[in-house]
Amino acid sequence: MTVSATSFRSDNDWGASPEVIAAIAACNGQTARPYGADDWTRRAEARFAEVFGRQVGALLVSTGTAANSISLAAMVPRWGSILCHRHAHIHADECGAPEFSRAARAWCPRPAPAASWILRCCAELAVGRGDVHCVQPSAVSITQCTEDGQVYSPEEVAAIARVCREAGVLLHMDGARFANAVASLGCEAADITWRAGVDILSFGATKNGALNAEAIIVFNDALGAQLPFLRKRAGHLLSKMRFVAAQMEAYLADDLWLANARHANAMAARLAQGLAGIPGVKLAAAARTNILFATLPEPMAAGLRERGFDFYGDRWGPGVVRLVTSFGTTLAMVDGMLAAARDITGERP
Amino acid sequence: MTVSATSFRSDNDWGASPEVIAAIAACNGQTARPYGADDWTRRAEARFAEVFGRQVGALLVSTGTAANSISLAAMVPRWGSILCHRHAHIHADECGAPEFSRAARAWCPRPAPAASWILRCCAELAVGRGDVHCVQPSAVSITQCTEDGQVYSPEEVAAIARVCREAGVLLHMDGARFANAVASLGCEAADITWRAGVDILSFGATKNGALNAEAIIVFNDALGAQLPFLRKRAGHLLSKMRFVAAQMEAYLADDLWLANARHANAMAARLAQGLAGIPGVKLAAAARTNILFATLPEPMAAGLRERGFDFYGDRWGPGVVRLVTSFGTTLAMVDGMLAAARDITGERP
Amino acid sequence: MTVSATSFRSDNDWGASPEVIAAIAACNGQTARPYGADDWTRRAEARFAEVFGRQVGALLVSTGTAANSISLAAMVPRWGSILCHRHAHIHADECGAPEFSRAARAWCPRPAPAASWILRCCAELAVGRGDVHCVQPSAVSITQCTEDGQVYSPEEVAAIARVCREAGVLLHMDGARFANAVASLGCEAADITWRAGVDILSFGATKNGALNAEAIIVFNDALGAQLPFLRKRAGHLLSKMRFVAAQMEAYLADDLWLANARHANAMAARLAQGLAGIPGVKLAAAARTNILFATLPEPMAAGLRERGFDFYGDRWGPGVVRLVTSFGTTLAMVDGMLAAARDITGERP
Amino acid sequence: MTVSATSFRSDNDWGASPEVIAAIAACNGQTARPYGADDWTRRAEARFAEVFGRQVGALLVSTGTAANSISLAAMVPRWGSILCHRHAHIHADECGAPEFSRAARAWCPRPAPAASWILRCCAELAVGRGDVHCVQPSAVSITQCTEDGQVYSPEEVAAIARVCREAGVLLHMDGARFANAVASLGCEAADITWRAGVDILSFGATKNGALNAEAIIVFNDALGAQLPFLRKRAGHLLSKMRFVAAQMEAYLADDLWLANARHANAMAARLAQGLAGIPGVKLAAAARTNILFATLPEPMAAGLRERGFDFYGDRWGPGVVRLVTSFGTTLAMVDGMLAAARDITGERP
Repeated sequence: MTVSATSFRSDNDWGASPEVIAAIAACNGQTARPYGADDWTRRAEARFAEVFGRQVGALLVSTGTAANSISLAAMVPRWGSILCHRHAHIHADECGAPEFSRAARAWCPRPAPAASWILRCCAELAVGRGDVHCVQPSAVSITQCTEDGQVYSPEEVAAIARVCREAGVLLHMDGARFANAVASLGCEAADITWRAGVDILSFGATKNGALNAEAIIVFNDALGAQLPFLRKRAGHLLSKMRFVAAQMEAYLADDLWLANARHANAMAARLAQGLAGIPGVKLAAAARTNILFATLPEPMAAGLRERGFDFYGDRWGPGVVRLVTSFGTTLAMVDGMLAAARDITGERP
Repeated sequence: MTVSATSFRSDNDWGASPEVIAAIAACNGQTARPYGADDWTRRAEARFAEVFGRQVGALLVSTGTAANSISLAAMVPRWGSILCHRHAHIHADECGAPEFSRAARAWCPRPAPAASWILRCCAELAVGRGDVHCVQPSAVSITQCTEDGQVYSPEEVAAIARVCREAGVLLHMDGARFANAVASLGCEAADITWRAGVDILSFGATKNGALNAEAIIVFNDALGAQLPFLRKRAGHLLSKMRFVAAQMEAYLADDLWLANARHANAMAARLAQGLAGIPGVKLAAAARTNILFATLPEPMAAGLRERGFDFYGDRWGPGVVRLVTSFGTTLAMVDGMLAAARDITGERP
Repeated sequence: MTVSATSFRSDNDWGASPEVIAAIAACNGQTARPYGADDWTRRAEARFAEVFGRQVGALLVSTGTAANSISLAAMVPRWGSILCHRHAHIHADECGAPEFSRAARAWCPRPAPAASWILRCCAELAVGRGDVHCVQPSAVSITQCTEDGQVYSPEEVAAIARVCREAGVLLHMDGARFANAVASLGCEAADITWRAGVDILSFGATKNGALNAEAIIVFNDALGAQLPFLRKRAGHLLSKMRFVAAQMEAYLADDLWLANARHANAMAARLAQGLAGIPGVKLAAAARTNILFATLPEPMAAGLRERGFDFYGDRWGPGVVRLVTSFGTTLAMVDGMLAAARDITGERP
Repeated sequence: MTVSATSFRSDNDWGASPEVIAAIAACNGQTARPYGADDWTRRAEARFAEVFGRQVGALLVSTGTAANSISLAAMVPRWGSILCHRHAHIHADECGAPEFSRAARAWCPRPAPAASWILRCCAELAVGRGDVHCVQPSAVSITQCTEDGQVYSPEEVAAIARVCREAGVLLHMDGARFANAVASLGCEAADITWRAGVDILSFGATKNGALNAEAIIVFNDALGAQLPFLRKRAGHLLSKMRFVAAQMEAYLADDLWLANARHANAMAARLAQGLAGIPGVKLAAAARTNILFATLPEPMAAGLRERGFDFYGDRWGPGVVRLVTSFGTTLAMVDGMLAAARDITGERP
């Protein structure tokens, strides 16, 4: 269904940046080698080296589930398990996909701040280690930014990586909203990835301005050789790869990826600030990226929906809603929703 | 590498039809439900019902390997095998992908005309049937048009389907170039699919005018329920699905798919006709679709390449080359190549 | 290492009943059809029909992990998950085996009495049902008797089965110690299996008197057809199957299986009764089968081990030990251990 | 069905050597650590080091399919294929088992003598190497002795191993009847395994005197670490492993394995010699091990079966039968069958 309502549902509801559409159109009208042996793919790969400040392996795919699954397939043996948060996309939202070419198992520690998560890792990674009866902990996967819109600092990532290294397991980062995390932290992409000890990153572009473009970024050279075979075998090597590469090139050019993420983050911050001033509204946490969780007074959610503002609720406890902004969210949309919320509570501005 | 040469290498070398690019641009600039719950997807699915003259299940994916693998995963149990030609893409060119969620095994009968292929099927499908020690023949997969550019007539498909039905196995059609086959046969899409007894079709659009759009078309309702889960699990459910659906909608609108295929077929026919008149050139078979195989005299292949015409060779025996035309191949390209060939042989037109 | 100590470690430490060894010897010295087409296998299968009071499918295998994995492989699709206790053998002790031909995932509800477990099932089985993004709950697996030596009553099994049926999922019972449960409940085998709604039972014999003999007992006919192929493919169809079948025949003859279990249970009850009277010893629960958990005073565990009594500890909290009896455990062993325990505490009998 | 006929059907029809039964009985009546941490397992492993003249990894399992599948799972990645003879057990008789934890694919070169097989390997191993679209040849598996009773000489094995090494693939030997091959060649076990370049051997005992005992023998240390996990995960780590280990210990003690094989081979040789002298009988090849193929005159097969001699036919062409001898086959059985055959042809001795 086309959504005529103003969507705060998901960044997946939005289309693509005009620059991305233009890049697709521009790379049409000529012939090129298929399966990634083209200039757009080569340039996108080179651009990743600049973004991360070092040579990296880069494999383009069309979905985040593919990026995560193929990455983890290279990191985890058949008898291995993956430690992740129970809200992690790979555990909760990918229909078993991390397992599609392996029988990995996601562990489900309870939601927790980074410090206790790290301690928990230490404990979980020791369970059954070397015991042939037990699935062997083989990788940790963290989501940056997290499903609830929070970010790991470079120090927190490094602390988790240290625990992993000591336990002899690999560290994967699901960066479906990586740009929002970098924009929020104001750090370099390297600071929360290879410099901190991440082995493979699923670098997302789709949610933040592309149509269907994601990349597997490999920092640990030992893992690189098998990835092209895993990608092909999974049906994720596109014949006309240049149309994905062109998206990625446009997305990375002139830091469009960061500009888009900064805008989305700023819209969420403005929304959070406005909501904080409305009686009865309770924010779950400070706005750090483009995802907010808030508890709205009883009739407010219904009232906002009636007035054409859409968002997810009914999943996280009574009155809790999720509000997601995007590169396409406008000031008018945010201010319109705040005005409507105030109006519903009877407060006139 | 960008190919400045005139490509007769593969239809994968070409971009997309302008209508397809326009459709992508047109569906941008608004929000929509993700994961296929959008209007474009609904309209593309409805359009397939018209194309095939009956209700069908339709699942959009980005690659032909995905369409084939997911289809076959729904048709074949873990202990099942798939009977296909040894040149079939699923056997020769998908890195084990048909097996990526099952342990199926492709059989490899020798290349043969349809009649003897059918007899061969009868024999192979009986091997080890019901014997717990043997992999159980569970599906036959035929490619329409075939890897060498030939087509199965509706009667031939029906004859193979009859053999399958009698043996209790399912029939899959890899239609990566389905449009070229329909255009060549001048039949309806239904005639070589469900009316003839095909259970699932991989309907290709990428090679014939789309960027990255394929569809799994399900005629056998019993197979439909598991496909959405298999697609998601394989990382092939796109979040911004409308951008694939919009491609497919444009591809099917006003029979663009058939117009593109007819053009490509006509270019191949013209090329074949021209080559047939050049001394020393031997065509492997009549041009029926957009793929030709020809044996060129010793210096001709090198000469053509020097003059900027590109194509595959060195795989099919001494002097044999493959020439593939596309919706984008122009009269000037074909005539230019023919002129160059004549020039090389010393014949002036 | 040969254990010269008196073992209360595991029923796996014990050998086989003399009747079972005799049956193996007796079926030697003649030729027979391989792969289960022999008279011993036929008789064992027929005997199962008597044990369960109805026709059942019966497939012999060598290990409990095989019985569980193959059963669950027939019950759960690739995108399915299995709900089980976090201490369940399939989750904790089989190195991912339930997943060896599928990508199933074991859920981990917290340990709980049956009533709350049932409620929990209701909740967990509803999570993500029909949502293509979510692994689909497809089977519940309960262990009878449980890893901590408790039993589900016929009513409790039936209540769980009802929840399963309403949710459209199948019910598997891991009966590695099924005999101990039947002996404890004093019911018929049917009462806690098909009459209560169990679809497939892993019927264990190895721990209770056989060498390496287990059976997959199928009550739900719809699941039967694929099991022989799954068994063969997993390498669990033995060529000289009669040597497993002969074990099973001897194990079921004259209710040896129940006699062995009753003896083991009685030894555990005697041990529990004795321990209950020793100051400082705390039993975790009443002795119902052949597994006891007890908390021993600080120096008692060490003292018992010094005197040649062996058992597992160090896994379940400070001072907690597991004591397992067997068909081979003698009165003298039990009384000897009790005397040693009393001696250590300074109590003379 | 019990076979009262004299069986020349398969060595699987026979029971176990008395020494093996005695060893099982002898290791009963005491407790031992489960899962292979027992003295019998340790001694069997040590005995293998003597048999092969060097340290080897040794993992006991219950079936040849398990030994083959688990070995190959450690040798072949998900996108890899296995080159084997089209009659190889792993391809023809294991229901897809080599693929049960990987998606490997068996290639099927036509039957051929070793020399041409080696040349064929060279060609097949080069197909698609490094090309991401192609399944990657990753292992060669040869059967020693072969399904038709022939043997590879040490030189032939070494020649195949050389081809493998040059192609960068591993070499597996299916030794379901390894003893018969060693007995036939009169060489050391090392000569046709590690000294010739074999990486892993499936060492069979079941067909030649054990009940259900096979071993995975690892010569290539790099492959050893993952095997215990693969074995456990496949349900092939037996809890009361000592009963398999005791079989293997008895089988290897005093070279019972070779004595049994020499006897079986001698019986086949005597049978071949006798048959060669009967008009109308044609032997396919010289008797080298315990398997013979012969073409019998029209009424002879039926006549022999009527007189109580059983064997397989109807699979290998008109009149062709397979005759298999065993450690249990007696002189009287062989001479009885020869006398019957002569009688049927009308020749009195």
